[in-house]
Amino acid sequence: MLIKIICGQMDVIPGRPDENYKKILEIISTAKEKQADILLLPEMCIPGYLIGDLWEQQTFLDDCQYYAEQIIAASKGICIMFGNVAFEKDKLNEDGRLRKYNAAFACQDGQIIGGYMGRNFIIKNSLPNYREFDDYRYFYSLQKLCAEEDAVVREALQPLKVTIKGEPIKIGLMICEDGWTENYHLNVPQTLADNGAEILFNLSCSPYSLGKNKKRNKLFSAQAKEAGVPLVYCNNVGIQNNGKNVFTYDGFSTAYNADGTVNASAEMYEDTILECTWDTEAGHFVGEGSIAALPQEPESIYKSLRYGTEKFLHQCGIKKMTIGLSGGIDSAITAAMYADILGAENVLLINLPSVYNSETTKNIAYNLAKNLGANYAVIPISHSCEHTEEQLTSTPITNMASGITFNLELSNIVKENIQARDRGARIIAAASAAFGGAFSCNSNKAEITVGYCTFYGDICGALAMIGDLWKHQVYALGRYMNEAIFKREVIPEEIFTIRPSAELASTQTVGTGGDPLIYEYHDYLLASFVENWHKTTPADILRWYKAGTLAQELGCSEEVIANAFPTPAEFIADLERWWKLFAGFSVAKRIQAPPIMSITKRAFGYDHREAQLTPYFSREYYKLKEELLK
Amino acid sequence: MLIKIICGQMDVIPGRPDENYKKILEIISTAKEKQADILLLPEMCIPGYLIGDLWEQQTFLDDCQYYAEQIIAASKGICIMFGNVAFEKDKLNEDGRLRKYNAAFACQDGQIIGGYMGRNFIIKNSLPNYREFDDYRYFYSLQKLCAEEDAVVREALQPLKVTIKGEPIKIGLMICEDGWTENYHLNVPQTLADNGAEILFNLSCSPYSLGKNKKRNKLFSAQAKEAGVPLVYCNNVGIQNNGKNVFTYDGFSTAYNADGTVNASAEMYEDTILECTWDTEAGHFVGEGSIAALPQEPESIYKSLRYGTEKFLHQCGIKKMTIGLSGGIDSAITAAMYADILGAENVLLINLPSVYNSETTKNIAYNLAKNLGANYAVIPISHSCEHTEEQLTSTPITNMASGITFNLELSNIVKENIQARDRGARIIAAASAAFGGAFSCNSNKAEITVGYCTFYGDICGALAMIGDLWKHQVYALGRYMNEAIFKREVIPEEIFTIRPSAELASTQTVGTGGDPLIYEYHDYLLASFVENWHKTTPADILRWYKAGTLAQELGCSEEVIANAFPTPAEFIADLERWWKLFAGFSVAKRIQAPPIMSITKRAFGYDHREAQLTPYFSREYYKLKEELLK
Repeated sequence: MLIKIICGQMDVIPGRPDENYKKILEIISTAKEKQADILLLPEMCIPGYLIGDLWEQQTFLDDCQYYAEQIIAASKGICIMFGNVAFEKDKLNEDGRLRKYNAAFACQDGQIIGGYMGRNFIIKNSLPNYREFDDYRYFYSLQKLCAEEDAVVREALQPLKVTIKGEPIKIGLMICEDGWTENYHLNVPQTLADNGAEILFNLSCSPYSLGKNKKRNKLFSAQAKEAGVPLVYCNNVGIQNNGKNVFTYDGFSTAYNADGTVNASAEMYEDTILECTWDTEAGHFVGEGSIAALPQEPESIYKSLRYGTEKFLHQCGIKKMTIGLSGGIDSAITAAMYADILGAENVLLINLPSVYNSETTKNIAYNLAKNLGANYAVIPISHSCEHTEEQLTSTPITNMASGITFNLELSNIVKENIQARDRGARIIAAASAAFGGAFSCNSNKAEITVGYCTFYGDICGALAMIGDLWKHQVYALGRYMNEAIFKREVIPEEIFTIRPSAELASTQTVGTGGDPLIYEYHDYLLASFVENWHKTTPADILRWYKAGTLAQELGCSEEVIANAFPTPAEFIADLERWWKLFAGFSVAKRIQAPPIMSITKRAFGYDHREAQLTPYFSREYYKLKEELLK
Repeated sequence: MLIKIICGQMDVIPGRPDENYKKILEIISTAKEKQADILLLPEMCIPGYLIGDLWEQQTFLDDCQYYAEQIIAASKGICIMFGNVAFEKDKLNEDGRLRKYNAAFACQDGQIIGGYMGRNFIIKNSLPNYREFDDYRYFYSLQKLCAEEDAVVREALQPLKVTIKGEPIKIGLMICEDGWTENYHLNVPQTLADNGAEILFNLSCSPYSLGKNKKRNKLFSAQAKEAGVPLVYCNNVGIQNNGKNVFTYDGFSTAYNADGTVNASAEMYEDTILECTWDTEAGHFVGEGSIAALPQEPESIYKSLRYGTEKFLHQCGIKKMTIGLSGGIDSAITAAMYADILGAENVLLINLPSVYNSETTKNIAYNLAKNLGANYAVIPISHSCEHTEEQLTSTPITNMASGITFNLELSNIVKENIQARDRGARIIAAASAAFGGAFSCNSNKAEITVGYCTFYGDICGALAMIGDLWKHQVYALGRYMNEAIFKREVIPEEIFTIRPSAELASTQTVGTGGDPLIYEYHDYLLASFVENWHKTTPADILRWYKAGTLAQELGCSEEVIANAFPTPAEFIADLERWWKLFAGFSVAKRIQAPPIMSITKRAFGYDHREAQLTPYFSREYYKLKEELLK
């Protein structure tokens, strides 16, 4: 028998069951037109997934249930399987709130088809609680339910018995993480296959991360092969956020044959459908489907940032963006991307020179604005900064107990931060509101990691679009945009060659005195603190340094390290400087930072969670340090 | 037999195993001097508990293990039970990272005493994943381990067999949430008692929330009574944070007799010990211990804020604070509290008048500074704001595609926000850095709920000390401080009578045109959105409004609602206005807000988690609205 399966790779809008329901009705209509036998829809396609504590609102849940009933009623002539929240009013979660499940419903001809543990829905067993996921906060797992009701998970995981064209088939339905079997002691897809499933469906709401699709293909291919049955992965597109992190969902719904090969996959980031036809006797899909291209860096970064940022602006109703343009690479990329998304006519670029800004960077800023054809203004900050310094130092402060007055003195660092805040909070924030819309945060991940930015100065704005990119990724993105997107020198060539500098003092120039970060090394050092699977600490760094394997472990050049730090003492001083900032004061800055467009395997925010603590160096660190300094 | 038990109600420093170990050695020494038989130490007393993703650093975990071994070695002549992280290098958590347990170790004479599932530690079974807790993110529960190893939790939960003075006793040891049995299907203390425990110990790391101690006493008393054995609750003091929320730990370690009565409890927020002597034959504690007072609002709020803020400043190394003093109640309370904590000589109060500020508020600010004896300055913002407006409106913006130039125009709201940012980001941020230390965020919970504050203007600073207080709680705190703390009129009486106003425009005055929030109603309305167990939504509000039970449900005055909104149309317009702000734009402001000193049962930040979404009104809401507007 041939069974036509369609995946609705829909753009799920988190927190909007009403909008998602409308969209689902359209997809059902399309699926019926195309004479699909089975329509798959993503995990949590009615409520959305990353909606924070909205799960605690009963009236929101009631609507999710209502729309689920409408979808079931609309299943005449088609079998539909969709993800949704399920709840039971007579039971409680362990926190005393309403019992909720991350569930999937299967229906046909207006009727529910099966479920687990006597319920009319299947229940997610593997609840992710890493990175941005908080599943146990909201949902009861199948495992917990089985423990509660003295049942065995392995037996509860029964395939759904569905009749298509008069013939019975057994479908193993699972939800997202149930398929990521690497570290769960119970393998859900294998159990479903062991229990007789002839095909596996995975309904997901799985965000994009660099390299994740490759891993998923490897894992799910192996799964289909080991189970000996085909597997269809249905994922949504769109964006969802947890406050601090904006994630993109790339769809990429895929049909895997029982031999592990890919039959078809849907285009990345497209609100579309994936069609495939399953030959139940042969156990594979018939015909050659179209297989979507999997872009590599920097193309994949460009696609994700552009898609995610465009969606985010749309969701927030932002149609115009203002960007402070320093003449450096970070603000240039940001400006180019917003012009690409919104049209240059909706972008206002402001260069805000003080006495410290070079002709070089001012010219770059002007040329970039010209190349983009954006709106451009130069608004100097010198007069205002002088006024601020004058006010602060000349206004007498009175000790009201003694009557004695005194005056404040401003250190160089205070003066530098005055400039940054004058630009961000005084000019850009107000100009963007007057221009309409919002303004951008141009900080990159290296700066955010060590807090090389000013509170309410440059680490502010509606979105840190490149906040999850290391400096080398920013450069690569700039090159890519000139070459592949604009196909001309929009981002001025000079920007790739000057030394990055904040230009906040006479010692900070694009000539000699640039940023204190040596990106060729620090990009990789800092990445190891945040992104390494077992988070790297200074003890690990010294251990590798001592063993001569540091460059290899970090993935950077040996020469850069050797040249920058001729002695262990210099190496250690540098390491301590950045570790103290990373684990110390920079946390305070990140707590108040804008949301980050998140693309790596670990982004700051609620993906990498942090408390404000005092920096810690381990016992091993002190031992190694002593040895190295001998 | 009489057994002397001491609880070490220690000040745990999160993320500092080295410091905590030193402290623990001191407590062990004290306990030995006092000839204690058993010393209890809190949950996670070596690593601390709220430490974010520091749990992923192997070298940090190694140190926690090392110090645990040292404590075990130091248990000569005493039985010690302490909480710590435990890990197994040959196993993985479900996310593929190292297998970790929220564990407790029992030791005596340098030897480990028992554990669960063949391990040398006991394992927390009930892992909290609500409010600020993320236990499943890091730890494997006893339930999961039993499922993995085909064991039964009920049988795994065996009391520890300890020999004291030559006699064997059975101790039921549990960790924090294991005692909060209300909604877990397995009751840990009862199971331990069923399995023979003669006494129950609960090692906790349990933060303070308004009303929580009362609930805990009720629950734990009942537990001791039902189990028919005494129960000792050992909790730490200090502060811990998750980035967005700073929590205080109030200790309050308590010894409950087997009849449910309290024998003794340790003083709130004191780094101290609790001593009690258990008569094993009689099954209760001998002698009358001292029972700590449980303060009521507003005293409890004062104690928590003062303790938590002092600790937070100390942890951050902040010795001086700068506060923008408007002449309103919020900044007044904040100034008074910091002067109380740091000494008035370490506090800089700045009044920042524009043309819109009244003599009334300027005088209040002056008088408050005088009453406190703090440092005081008046720094006007008019010149700078005029300059900003002039720069923004007179600088030509060039469309670089067409060459056409245009100028920005500033609306009233843009002009208001320019003032707020001129105060916060231009003056206060710089003045505080020059004065040394940090500056305060004076926003209250009502303002934060609806975003009645300016990005980078007033919703900025090192800490939102009163960010978890509703306006009526702020007033009550002010009255309390004058009466009970200062015992004189430090906070000028006039401040309690003027109408709160932002004074950012000629229409906003303390006379006629105050804040748009009617605190007597909106405090309670907004609290229901955030703090109610089942989060209240506009549909709930309209249902109650229609039924005539709204005031009762919210706990506010009927007259206030009736007077403010003569018609359903006015009531609904107001409700929609604030709901849209609460569920919409204000989320963006909270994402970038400072950490909040958290004291209620639900604080913004990582206690109440939020995504940036478009505000949602449910189907029921639209139905009720239509009925009411008929």
